[in-house]
Amino acid sequence: MSTAEQPTPGKRRGRRPGGQDTRAALVTAAREVFSESGYEGATVRAIAARAGVDAAMVNHWFGGKEGLFAQAVLQLPFDPVELLSQLLDGPVDELGKRIVRRFLTVWDATEGGAFPALVRSIASHDQAALSLKDFLIRHVLENVVSRVSPDRPELRATLCASQMVGMGMARYVAKFEPFSTTDIETLAAAVGPTLQRYLTGDID
Amino acid sequence: MSTAEQPTPGKRRGRRPGGQDTRAALVTAAREVFSESGYEGATVRAIAARAGVDAAMVNHWFGGKEGLFAQAVLQLPFDPVELLSQLLDGPVDELGKRIVRRFLTVWDATEGGAFPALVRSIASHDQAALSLKDFLIRHVLENVVSRVSPDRPELRATLCASQMVGMGMARYVAKFEPFSTTDIETLAAAVGPTLQRYLTGDID
Repeated sequence: MSTAEQPTPGKRRGRRPGGQDTRAALVTAAREVFSESGYEGATVRAIAARAGVDAAMVNHWFGGKEGLFAQAVLQLPFDPVELLSQLLDGPVDELGKRIVRRFLTVWDATEGGAFPALVRSIASHDQAALSLKDFLIRHVLENVVSRVSPDRPELRATLCASQMVGMGMARYVAKFEPFSTTDIETLAAAVGPTLQRYLTGDID
Repeated sequence: MSTAEQPTPGKRRGRRPGGQDTRAALVTAAREVFSESGYEGATVRAIAARAGVDAAMVNHWFGGKEGLFAQAVLQLPFDPVELLSQLLDGPVDELGKRIVRRFLTVWDATEGGAFPALVRSIASHDQAALSLKDFLIRHVLENVVSRVSPDRPELRATLCASQMVGMGMARYVAKFEPFSTTDIETLAAAVGPTLQRYLTGDID
């Protein structure tokens, strides 16, 4: 290694405290700390300390602990906190359709992207994938459900999750025809009412 | 190998033409012929010839080509033809609930059994798993749907399939709590109406 290529971490961090190297350091630290402590046990303070940066950088780059976990560790193609507020912005009785549209739009953009790998990981009991599952159900879906329905939010969240995972399987993994090639609006009309009933309707 | 252990295939088959060795020979032959010719291309006659037994043995042991494929090749824990007639036996407006009950009863009996492996295989584009998918959708689900709804049976069948695969994922693979431990009747009440709408209801 030549002298010119040798890293001088303190100096670089000192020069660009909010730069891409700070983000990368947070990603590395987050993977370690979430892996050691689990989602609940990990703190923003501990991750920032491990990365050697100020805890405010977590908010700056990731919008908080949820965003750091989702983007840095799980490499989700969306920010779950932003997603949550976008989904809740609109009439409650069309929430089911909005979820279907958003789900298919996000994943269609990369033709399913990491969805098959995610499913393989969950089926293989991979810890990161199981953390993702818990994270999405508890911190995204249950959060949505508890705002629109006080009745059994945990069961309603997992009913929604069952149809959403099934959509992903049908469209990106098993590729059921014609489901996998049907346009998003047709599927929003067909599947939206299912999620709507799971969210706010009669499930008895 | 001692002389006593040496197999004498012709003699054994000759002695017990309808016995377990005939069944085993059919299973082996079916795996080969379905693999070489695909589901549509394979014939009962060719499979029986490969096994060196009479074609009537396929009906005797497996009820026909579908049953041979499902039980011998895919090792499904049910006979799809028998399943089909059982599902259709009852009021049409409770078909959705019957499907949910049957699906969960069959798979719960083995605590999910081969479901996770099946999902891994489909996610890995394993040919046998893809054949299973085509077989279940075309020969079981579309068959059910086309008897109760003349409107877009293919789309309706894959909508049902999406929720059914999602149920299996939620209960046996990803194990979403509380979905994975909720009793069958509660889930039949919650998810049954979804399948019912996909089968016979308004999907626009």
